[in-house]
Order: sequence, then C-alpha cells, then structure tokens
Amino acid sequence: MTRAPAVSSALARRLAAALGPAHVIADPAELRVYACDGITHGRTTPALVALPGSTEEVVEVVNAAREAGVPLVPRGAGTGLSGGARPSPGSIVVSLARMRRILELDLENGWARVEPGVINLDVSRAVAAAGWYYAPDPSSQGVCSIGGNVAENSGGAHCLKYGFTTNHVLAARVVLSDGSVVDLGGPAADAPGYDLLAAMVGSEGLLGIATEATLRLLRKPEVTRTFFATFPSTDEAGAAVSGIIAAGILPAAIEMMDRLAIVAAKAATGLDWPDVGAALLMDADGCRAEVEHVAARAIEITRAAGALEIRVPRDEAERQLMWKGRKSAFAAVGRISPNYLVEDGVIPRSEIARVLREIERMAAEAGLRVANVFHAGDGNLHPLVLYDARNPGEEARAAALGGEILRLCIRSGGSITGEHGVGAEKAAYMAEQFAPEDLETMQRVRCAFDGAALMNPGKVFPTPRLCGERPGPYRPHPAEVAGLAERW
Amino acid sequence: MTRAPAVSSALARRLAAALGPAHVIADPAELRVYACDGITHGRTTPALVALPGSTEEVVEVVNAAREAGVPLVPRGAGTGLSGGARPSPGSIVVSLARMRRILELDLENGWARVEPGVINLDVSRAVAAAGWYYAPDPSSQGVCSIGGNVAENSGGAHCLKYGFTTNHVLAARVVLSDGSVVDLGGPAADAPGYDLLAAMVGSEGLLGIATEATLRLLRKPEVTRTFFATFPSTDEAGAAVSGIIAAGILPAAIEMMDRLAIVAAKAATGLDWPDVGAALLMDADGCRAEVEHVAARAIEITRAAGALEIRVPRDEAERQLMWKGRKSAFAAVGRISPNYLVEDGVIPRSEIARVLREIERMAAEAGLRVANVFHAGDGNLHPLVLYDARNPGEEARAAALGGEILRLCIRSGGSITGEHGVGAEKAAYMAEQFAPEDLETMQRVRCAFDGAALMNPGKVFPTPRLCGERPGPYRPHPAEVAGLAERW
Repeated sequence: MTRAPAVSSALARRLAAALGPAHVIADPAELRVYACDGITHGRTTPALVALPGSTEEVVEVVNAAREAGVPLVPRGAGTGLSGGARPSPGSIVVSLARMRRILELDLENGWARVEPGVINLDVSRAVAAAGWYYAPDPSSQGVCSIGGNVAENSGGAHCLKYGFTTNHVLAARVVLSDGSVVDLGGPAADAPGYDLLAAMVGSEGLLGIATEATLRLLRKPEVTRTFFATFPSTDEAGAAVSGIIAAGILPAAIEMMDRLAIVAAKAATGLDWPDVGAALLMDADGCRAEVEHVAARAIEITRAAGALEIRVPRDEAERQLMWKGRKSAFAAVGRISPNYLVEDGVIPRSEIARVLREIERMAAEAGLRVANVFHAGDGNLHPLVLYDARNPGEEARAAALGGEILRLCIRSGGSITGEHGVGAEKAAYMAEQFAPEDLETMQRVRCAFDGAALMNPGKVFPTPRLCGERPGPYRPHPAEVAGLAERW
Repeated sequence: MTRAPAVSSALARRLAAALGPAHVIADPAELRVYACDGITHGRTTPALVALPGSTEEVVEVVNAAREAGVPLVPRGAGTGLSGGARPSPGSIVVSLARMRRILELDLENGWARVEPGVINLDVSRAVAAAGWYYAPDPSSQGVCSIGGNVAENSGGAHCLKYGFTTNHVLAARVVLSDGSVVDLGGPAADAPGYDLLAAMVGSEGLLGIATEATLRLLRKPEVTRTFFATFPSTDEAGAAVSGIIAAGILPAAIEMMDRLAIVAAKAATGLDWPDVGAALLMDADGCRAEVEHVAARAIEITRAAGALEIRVPRDEAERQLMWKGRKSAFAAVGRISPNYLVEDGVIPRSEIARVLREIERMAAEAGLRVANVFHAGDGNLHPLVLYDARNPGEEARAAALGGEILRLCIRSGGSITGEHGVGAEKAAYMAEQFAPEDLETMQRVRCAFDGAALMNPGKVFPTPRLCGERPGPYRPHPAEVAGLAERW
C-alpha cells in the first residue's frame, strides 16, 4: 500500500478552527496512543486525531476530510478485537470520546437516546434505580462505548436470550461520507422504508458515523439463578448444552470453558474451581416461578449429561465471583502464556463437541496450545491460540492455526466472526466465507454510501476496489436504459 | 404515467421456452386475475405473468425482462394490504406460487429452509408434531406465503413477544436485477459483512426476488393462558395495556378492539360478547409456572385499570373462538359497512388512548365511522375507515381521513406502516415520514441493487427518479477522486 498524502497543515488548521484547538491532536507522541485498538500488532500512527463534540462538528470533520481526499477512521473506546479502529496510513482518526451525554430517557416507552461515547454499562447505571437495564453485555462493558458497539454489532454472554446490539438499537443519527445527516429507524415498531439501520449496525465504520443511538431498554428480571457445572471433557459439556436447548429452555447465558481456560481463570482470580476437562456457567432469568422451574430442569439435564459436580452460588457475591472468573478468562490467559491470539468464530450449536475435538487435534499438530472460553448457547467460539513471540516462527504458526480454525468454522456451516467484527484482521477470510456475488452485493452498498471509499478504508473487504470498477453484469444493458426512458 | 412498451411476442416466446408454455400467462382473461392484490382499487392488468419453478428460472425471467427493458412485479399469494403486488403498466408479474417446497428441516439447530411460495401456516404444520412452530402470524397466515411475508416484513398478533418476520429469517437466496444470485445471512448467529438480509426483508420487491428463505423455528410453549376483558371505553383499555407492560410483563399478544369492531366481530361470528366501549384479548405463553404467575398478575392489573368483566376461556375450543373473533374482525367490518379502508399506523404505546380519542374526533368531523382493531402492545393501530362508495364523494372523504390518520401517527412519534408495507398505497406519505436526506439514502441503496429501476417500480418511493439523477452532495468531489488514486 502506498502512503496517503500527508495531512496538510491547512487541514489541521481548518479542523482546529471548527472544533477548537484542544480537540485536534497533531503531536506525534500523542498520536501514537491512537495507533491501535484492542489488537496491538500492525500499529499505524494516524496523521491527525479529531475529537468532535456534536453531530455538527462530525459533519465539519467529514466535509474537511472529503474535500482534502483524506480517509477517516472512526473510533469508540478502542477496545475492539478485530483492528477495526486501526488507522490507515495518513488517515484522520475521528474519536467520539467527547460525545458522552445521555440525551433523553423515555421509560414509559422503554428507550434511551445517547451519544456514541457513552460507556455501555453507564446506560444501565442511569436507569437501574427505576428497574431497567440495557441488555447487550460485552465482557468489556465497563469500558467499551455504545458507538463502538453499534459499529461492531457487539454481543456478550447474555445475547443468547436477549440478542445482539442490532436487536437493541431502535434508531440512529448517522453522518454519511458526503456530510449529510440521516435518521435511520425510530422508537416505534417496524419503521417503513428499507431497514438501513440494520445494515448500519455492524458496518464497522464503513457506511457512516453514528452520532446518536436510541437504545431499547429492558425491565430487570425479577430473579436470576446461576449454576456452575464441571465435566470430564468438553464432550459432556457440549451434550449438556444441546440437551438444555433441546428441552426448549432458553438460558439467559450459557458459557463454556475448557481445561486450559479454567486453569488460567483460577490463576488470575484465585477461584477454587477444580481441575477438570470443561465447565459450564449458566444463568436463567425471568419471573421467580419460571426461573426456579427452568433452573431445576437445566440442572437435571446437566447431571444426566455427565456433570461431575454442580455448584449453585450461595449468594449474589458468590455469583458475581463465578462470573468474574468467566469474564476475566481472556485476560487471564496472559498468566499462562506470554502471547495469545483471540479468535471469534461461529458454528452450529450441534457441532460444538466435534469442532472442539478438531481444534485440539489441529493445535497438537501445530505444536501449540488453544484455550477455549465461549458463548456455547449460540455456538460462538473464542479459541485463544497461545504462543511465545520470542520463539522464532511461533507467531506465524499461531496466526496460521487461527486461520485454519476460522476455515474449520466456515466448513462446519458457521462463520468467521460472532461478535468481534471483520475489521483489519479477518478481511482476508471474507472471500472464503462469501461467494464473489455476495461480496459484490456488499460492495454495491458500500459504494452507495461512500463512493470515494474514504470511510475506514482497508477494513472488511478482502480486496480494495474503486467504486467505478464494477464487473460486467452490473452495468445496465442499453435496452434497460431505453425501456426506462420510455416509461418515465 | 405513460405506458410501458407492450411486451413483445418475442419476449413471451423466450419466457415460454425457458419455463414451459404452461407457466407463462398471456391470455387477457387470465391476466385480469393478477390485476390487484388485497387492495382491489387501482387494478392494472399486467402484460404477462411468469410462474418460474426454480431459482434458475427466476434468473431467466429477470434476464429476459431486463434485456427487453420491461419492469417486473414479484407476487406471493396476493394477500398484501398496501398494493405492493399491483402490476405497473406493461409489467411482467413474477408469481412465486409454484415454488412451494420445504427444502430442508434442521430441528437440532432450529431452522427450516423453504421456497417462497410455501404458505406461512404450512411451515408450522410441517414441524408441529416435533413440537416446533414458526412464530410470525399474520391474520392471513392460512393463505399468505413466506415470500410475501419476507417482502413486506409481515407482523401478526404474536409479534409483540416474538418479533416480526425480520427477526425470524436467518438467511435468504435472492435474485438481483442483474440476474446474479446472492446468499444473504446464514443459519449461524450474527453473520459477518453488512446485514443486507435485514435490508432485503421488508424491501417490498424493489431490491430482489427471494427464492429461498431459512426460517428460525421456535419450540412450542408449554402452555398458553388467554383472557378477554371488556371496558367502558378505550381509555381504560389503553391504561390496562400500559399497566401490564409497565409491570415488566411481555404478553405473547395483547389485542384491542373498540365498540364498532366488537359489533362487527359479533355480527360475523355470533360470539356472545357484550356491547362495550372496548375489549382486550391477551395471550401469555411459556412454561406453566411462569404463565400462571404472569396471567394472574395481568388480570389483577386489568381489573385495577377499570375492566367491566374478565373472561377466561374454559377450554381450547373457547380460546380458539375468542381468537377467531379477533382475527375475523377485518373482514367482519364488511357486515356493517359496504366499503372500508384498512389503515396501518404505529404510535408509541403511551399515546394509544390520546390518539384513539383524536381519531374519533376527526371521524366525527368528516362524518364517517372508524372501527379500531389492533395490536395494542406494540402500538400498531389498524383504523378501518368505513364508507359507502355509492354516496358521491364519500370514498374521497374516506381516503382523506385515512391520510389524516397517518399524519396523526407521524406527529405522535410513530410511522405510516406497522406491518402492511408502503407499497403503492402509501408512497405519497413517505415524504412526510422521512426527511429528504433519509429518502435519498434509501434511493442510493435502491440504485445500488437496481440501477435501471425495473424491480417493482412505482412502489415505496414518493417520486420516481432515475438513478443517474443524484442531487449535488452525492457526486464525489474531484479532490476525493484524486486522493483516492494516490492511495491505491
């Protein structure tokens, strides 16, 4: 890739005039802070960082960048796990961190309108006293922001029952690459027109920059019942998950950890979990009568599937500790390995046990270890490939194994990302996941929103391509144009 | 609108060769059957009807029409209530009625892959013995087809708890206007790439023709509890709905009827419902313990809100009769009025009582009667404007009142359609619902899929426009193009 034109000082001055000098970063040392997101390799220092404080200021930034022909990279809290906010060379990073106001709460109709920089957990905190919460719960929910959640269509442990971010965004105000401001969706059910809101959620910063989101709020469930179960291997744990779902039970969350993930979580938290082949952590929530019934039945099925031990927390503090073990498992892996890759693939729930065995076989063949800690209920695997970057060639071997795991997910009828997005990291696999016609259809939509490819270029699509370059069948046949002229 | 060029006999011959002569209708008498859908005014006889039997045959029809510059109008079962399948002059209707196979059932992972001509209720029938069903339930579910449901993003009484069609379509195979075949979505959770499946569902035949849909199946709930409650007026009924939802209860369905709708339903079904100002019909479903608890609490709230009487059906037969009364209410209105218009607007749930009072006032002012029978839980009104077409000027007055009701929905923070679509009937109101920038964004996407506007032209968009005619800001600035060339 050749380098973009350096951002001129004229552009920096224009932005400083529009946003105020304090909200444009041009100092090389400060810029390095923005060189990566949660994926720390491939760091690229941007040319500038702009911190707009309002929709109007985002429009100013977009117009200035477009007129100068400089690409934009939108950025939330920078916790993403696919390199989606990694700057492209010569780009302007648009940080939404200053836009962190909760603009409106309507509890009668159950929604909150917020700016993109609001932290996920702060939405729930703002309405907790009234008995409401915001459902999508990435493990990073204490630090990640709503704008990033919208861009990545973030999930979390409780998305099994409650759905992903896309199921909880009712409307969004979005700045497009031409500087226009559009409102997609609305708080009422099923808005007319194309469902472009759904296309915008999860579009990873390529279609526009959300400057407001209207979020569906839910009533807090009356009770939550949790249990932790251990198994000789992931085979029995997988059978328990299948059995619970097949019985018509929809847990609020059902998470699986394998031996290596359990070892890591124990090392990090001091939990007294036993050394076993696999563990499940399940939440059931709802009204008391329902939950007691469901939890009892799920425990019965888990026991029949071959559980070694089933622990029910004595109180909320013990429950929180169990969840802390699960939620810290990613970071905990750092205790047992100097480096690791986080993968994020999806497979049909019925394939879990087979795919985990296959991953184990592939890891052994590559001479590497893989820890698995994941959302079992919706088949969203998170294999963590452990390696030591100090050993020559080991990083490359880990990356190759990660790629082979993604291919295994595709072959098993699943996909290359469940909730972390494609970003910079997985763009190369899109051509294996999708047929050329499918990618071409996405490309058409990208071009409809951003013909000059200035919004987060180099992400998601496997091959950068100009919007003029359309393959044969897309060009209208002359007869079409003639027929059209006659009709209108 | 000027007429399209007559479909040449060469085109009819090409289609007959591709589909077999029995599957191309050119006889004027037979063509008249296809002149309208559930909206019977504005009939327009198409030039031809093609009945393809496979994805490949749909591609043949699309290619033949495009090369001849003739518009296409996709058609499911023809039960739509917005004129979405009304032929445009000189068009070819593409009926999917022959494609009615259930292609694959995967109950372990909970989905069915079906052709678009499959009748909605037949999906549930195919899996009922195994304890599963397909949730979206338009009142027409015994006759409407999945392809039409996908095109219109159909709802139904139980969509309050279970969501609209868009929440139950996991994947679709779609033929685009250039003849390419694309697969959108997939059976695994949260597919990567833009969520174009959501944009396709509800796109009313303008973006492509679905030839396969993969539908999410649900386990049948263990029990359903139903009650019917009467009230002095819609004020108390509205308060009961708000109270139930505010208590954190999510009914499977909660339907409201006003005095006129009750009178009509009684006349049609012989039900012994009392003459009251309003009635609610509510379903709670789930596991037994939960449902008993929820139903008892909802009844308590309904009584406190001012219910006159609460009836719990003694058995499934009586329950079915109550639902028959509700589901036949539309048609039943024909018993008390020679003609009527079906409107379909959405308002915030908290506005129901106020908006119904306002509709009553507007109807009195226009000298017309309006019956209301609707999905109260999600604020999806169905005002039926009664009139007698034999009285000069009354039809126009009814249409004007219908329009004013839609404007009232927009002003109240709602929208012009909840589940029937925009189609031909409401295209004129889109410019009142949406800002020019919002419509322009939809237009960009339409152009990305169908640059020659051959797919169901004249529907949804208020002003037909060529895809070349883009307003100023969309054209890339020369600097953008220069910047781009330097980057890649």
